[in-house]
Amino acid sequence: MVRADAERNIEAILDAGQRLLTLDPGASVAEVAKAAGVGRVTLYGHFPSREHLVDAVITRAIQEADAALDDPELAELPAAEAMARLVASSWEILNRHSRLFVAADRALPAERIRERHAEPLRRVEALIERGRASGEFRTDVRASWQVSTFFALLHTAAQEVEAARLERAEAGGVLVTSLGSLLAARSRSAG
Amino acid sequence: MVRADAERNIEAILDAGQRLLTLDPGASVAEVAKAAGVGRVTLYGHFPSREHLVDAVITRAIQEADAALDDPELAELPAAEAMARLVASSWEILNRHSRLFVAADRALPAERIRERHAEPLRRVEALIERGRASGEFRTDVRASWQVSTFFALLHTAAQEVEAARLERAEAGGVLVTSLGSLLAARSRSAG
Repeated sequence: MVRADAERNIEAILDAGQRLLTLDPGASVAEVAKAAGVGRVTLYGHFPSREHLVDAVITRAIQEADAALDDPELAELPAAEAMARLVASSWEILNRHSRLFVAADRALPAERIRERHAEPLRRVEALIERGRASGEFRTDVRASWQVSTFFALLHTAAQEVEAARLERAEAGGVLVTSLGSLLAARSRSAG
Repeated sequence: MVRADAERNIEAILDAGQRLLTLDPGASVAEVAKAAGVGRVTLYGHFPSREHLVDAVITRAIQEADAALDDPELAELPAAEAMARLVASSWEILNRHSRLFVAADRALPAERIRERHAEPLRRVEALIERGRASGEFRTDVRASWQVSTFFALLHTAAQEVEAARLERAEAGGVLVTSLGSLLAARSRSAG
């Protein structure tokens, strides 16, 4: 009974945290506790700091997002086309969670955010390895660099939209274009 | 006399701050005060928070770096070659200051760090505009996006080196390659 209560409280706190941080990346622990209908002491019992709370909220959001990226058709497509689709769907998800991302970016070290993306990282890695093996993607830079630039450009697009330097509606296309030229094996004439 | 003392103290604090943060991005205000040979009260009199101190240290470092980027030959070269040279020299500077950059990245909002780069931003912007006008660089994405990806990839390279996923010595070449393919006007055959 006690355990069920605790689980309900955690669920309510994470729901409220996600909702509030999506509206305002600077939302406080007190505001989240209030919106979740729990006391601050209860909240701190589960999440000892704001950093822990933000971490738990984005970990859950990334798990949900990763399930949405699980598109069985990707494996059937040539790597470059599959990549364009993966970029577009990743952006769509990031776009929905862009303020949550800003909150995470402020509250957590970059390496922690990267660790929390282990599942989507593996998807991107696998696709990049496939494109390198098929000759569609360039192999004169490390695969790990290509994986990191994938996330870096998504991150940059989110910041550009947040700073009103890029229209939300154009960001997906810009990302597909930019990651496409970053990854493409160099045609001889482009040398 | 009092003003000269204050200026000497500020200079000593900034020198110590740059030295310590370059060794350890987590260096504390107390450590900086000690190394500068001033009391904490004196330090806080000039820099009311660690954030103010880190901000002042990187602002000075960026000013010095920007002077080093002032290469009159750049204007003589085709935009693509000038860009390769600007990327390489920017990386060399960032590389020297990479821990300082990590300190700034942790202590300051991304938009603040961008504001502090106003001078180098203008150099990159001017070169991108020149390459777009000459047809060397693609024009199907915004110039502001190209400027932001320039800084994003430098930033990513610094993080990759810090995380030991990229060799310091190879990062400059990887950046020239990646930014080159991001910016290059698309050859028809690559379509």
